[in-house]
Amino acid sequence: MSALEYPPPASLRAAALDGFAAGYGDSVLELDRAVAAAPGPAGLIDLTHGDTRAFEPPASAAADLVAAVRDNDEAYTAYRGSESLRRRLAPRLAALLGRPVDPAAELIVTPGTQGGLFAALSSLIGPGDVVALPDPDYFMSERIVAYLGARAVRLALDVAPDGRLSLAERVLAQAADARLLLFSHPNNPTGGVYAPDTVAALADWVADGDRLCIVDQLYCRQLFEGAEFTQLGALPGMAQRTVTLVGPSKTESMSGYRVGVAVAPGPVIDTMERVLAMASLRTTAYAQQALRHWLDGDGDWIAGRAAEHQALRDPLVALLRGIPGVSVASPLGSSYVFPDVAGTAWSSARGHGSRRGDALAIALKAGGVLINPGYQFGSGAATRFRINFSQDAERLWEACARIERVLRGS
Amino acid sequence: MSALEYPPPASLRAAALDGFAAGYGDSVLELDRAVAAAPGPAGLIDLTHGDTRAFEPPASAAADLVAAVRDNDEAYTAYRGSESLRRRLAPRLAALLGRPVDPAAELIVTPGTQGGLFAALSSLIGPGDVVALPDPDYFMSERIVAYLGARAVRLALDVAPDGRLSLAERVLAQAADARLLLFSHPNNPTGGVYAPDTVAALADWVADGDRLCIVDQLYCRQLFEGAEFTQLGALPGMAQRTVTLVGPSKTESMSGYRVGVAVAPGPVIDTMERVLAMASLRTTAYAQQALRHWLDGDGDWIAGRAAEHQALRDPLVALLRGIPGVSVASPLGSSYVFPDVAGTAWSSARGHGSRRGDALAIALKAGGVLINPGYQFGSGAATRFRINFSQDAERLWEACARIERVLRGS
Repeated sequence: MSALEYPPPASLRAAALDGFAAGYGDSVLELDRAVAAAPGPAGLIDLTHGDTRAFEPPASAAADLVAAVRDNDEAYTAYRGSESLRRRLAPRLAALLGRPVDPAAELIVTPGTQGGLFAALSSLIGPGDVVALPDPDYFMSERIVAYLGARAVRLALDVAPDGRLSLAERVLAQAADARLLLFSHPNNPTGGVYAPDTVAALADWVADGDRLCIVDQLYCRQLFEGAEFTQLGALPGMAQRTVTLVGPSKTESMSGYRVGVAVAPGPVIDTMERVLAMASLRTTAYAQQALRHWLDGDGDWIAGRAAEHQALRDPLVALLRGIPGVSVASPLGSSYVFPDVAGTAWSSARGHGSRRGDALAIALKAGGVLINPGYQFGSGAATRFRINFSQDAERLWEACARIERVLRGS
Repeated sequence: MSALEYPPPASLRAAALDGFAAGYGDSVLELDRAVAAAPGPAGLIDLTHGDTRAFEPPASAAADLVAAVRDNDEAYTAYRGSESLRRRLAPRLAALLGRPVDPAAELIVTPGTQGGLFAALSSLIGPGDVVALPDPDYFMSERIVAYLGARAVRLALDVAPDGRLSLAERVLAQAADARLLLFSHPNNPTGGVYAPDTVAALADWVADGDRLCIVDQLYCRQLFEGAEFTQLGALPGMAQRTVTLVGPSKTESMSGYRVGVAVAPGPVIDTMERVLAMASLRTTAYAQQALRHWLDGDGDWIAGRAAEHQALRDPLVALLRGIPGVSVASPLGSSYVFPDVAGTAWSSARGHGSRRGDALAIALKAGGVLINPGYQFGSGAATRFRINFSQDAERLWEACARIERVLRGS
């Protein structure tokens, strides 16, 4: 084969995830490309991510960034991030996570929570390892696991209509070989929050099996009425087994700054730092300083933001449930909902064959709405799609009207 | 082994590069740790990177970043970078690199040139591959090659006193198995520029052997009088075989923004984008816009900056050559010099055994100057060290006085 065919290495071919999508016969990357290439009208409403103008970042973020650029005294930080920033953040993270955090040893500033996820997985698993991963969960997680030569065992989640998540013991038993548990909490894409006894059972499973755990808590500050959120790393003995990822990309609308943090045992942070140094040296130095006031007495601001999203969630869930054949759990946190359209006129017109996942995304795009198709998140979600409802309300209701038109087949 | 020993995967153990440093019996990471832990006085002068306050970024960079944060209309860009930015940059990059650049297919915005290097290597090589890499060259290159399971064959460079670099044909023949050539140009750490006939010979070697090439041209805009810089990707047939990395982190002092670009064949950019998406989703969106005026009619500004560095280079080289037993090539580009102290009083007092590399770095640190020890850059450089001379002149001359005191053994 000529070098000019540019064959990607096997690791990247694995990350195309043919196995992951085996349920309907195509690789996730090919499905993604088909959706991206499909036609959509002008005025497409993009629900794949939040609208950072409808929900703006806190004013301190821009002010701190501008000051950092002007002062220009930390263009080069330690690879693990600015020492002064880590000292500021450690006590605030300790309060959030309910455990002590050593700013020198146990904390790294990452290029978003994605950068933390990549560095953590790269530091803990390699070829042949098995990773326990709920189904559904964040769409990049299984790609990275496959890229690293490891294999994900998917654990079917029980999602109650009120957004409480649980995992049956017999499901967990399927992943007995796993050396790592990886999950998002609140769950991406359902917005579900794990029941406290499920988190306790997961902690026991991790400890009893001498396992480690990565928990992606990107959305742990955006919780709704009735959510009982358990900090995994705060449970007895779990700090030494847990990498916790947090960041301001979602609730604080700061995705454009590409900053986040990971809290983990010292040796894991050391290894993550080596990965980060290879991948991009360090998190953008000036943008790191946009975290200077993050988590700093902003409880009221966060409560307000959560309330604004709860006020969108309730009519959104009602609207979706009003479409014949649609079912959806009401999220207890995050800005996500993950409706199932299996019973709709649209779905029944397509029978029960394969490729309904990309067909759904393509049909909704043709109808004027961009969503994340369910196949990205797990093997049993072909008739689902994810909405990020952190949007301007009028646009969100217009999007819902468009979705309803497509799903009613009218 | 308990999970609580946190064993890093084999890929990361390989990247500790025991093999690389086999010449003196320690892993590079262990040597680096020894240097980091060694005592240094207050007022240590750090010559491991440029001083972005002595040489400030162009004013447009901060202004463009601030506008991007204020306008907040591109918090989420394509993973390969803002479409509007790529359209702006493509013709400017085409002019710089002497070849056409398609903004949609052949260009990706990366988290610094480091992010481009990691994504390019991850896209082109895998376990068992052989990479031809000059000796000395950028210290992260062999680490990433080893991390990916590939093996570097180091090619001894000929460095003329005037900074012209050449590679003997018999040296290149040692890397016959290589499927990829990777090199920095101007060379990091020597500041050398490859003779035009050497670049032509490298291009022939790449094409004749159906190889690919990654050329890190981070410093290609900071060239001194007499430098004849050949753009590898502009040579006939080479655009389809070359990944060119460029960025504003050095000459433009914009390392704190963590932005760069890669120009490569379309399929390679597609693969690099997949790596970038896994590693950190995208380059910091707001910081991308700091490139809005990069390469935009700034010829005079660049010429001035190169002249300022040439004015530092000449007395620096003279000072170093004035220390008995020190030899050094005068760089033709970059802000680096790479002196050899093999003949100094300091070195002869240490005999000719192993570990002189870290001993040198530790001695200089004790004397008040932080440098990059030569062992980081290649197997034959234990008695060398790298200086970045993009510094305030007074601090640089004070650093030279301290270096001289250590090397004279006084």
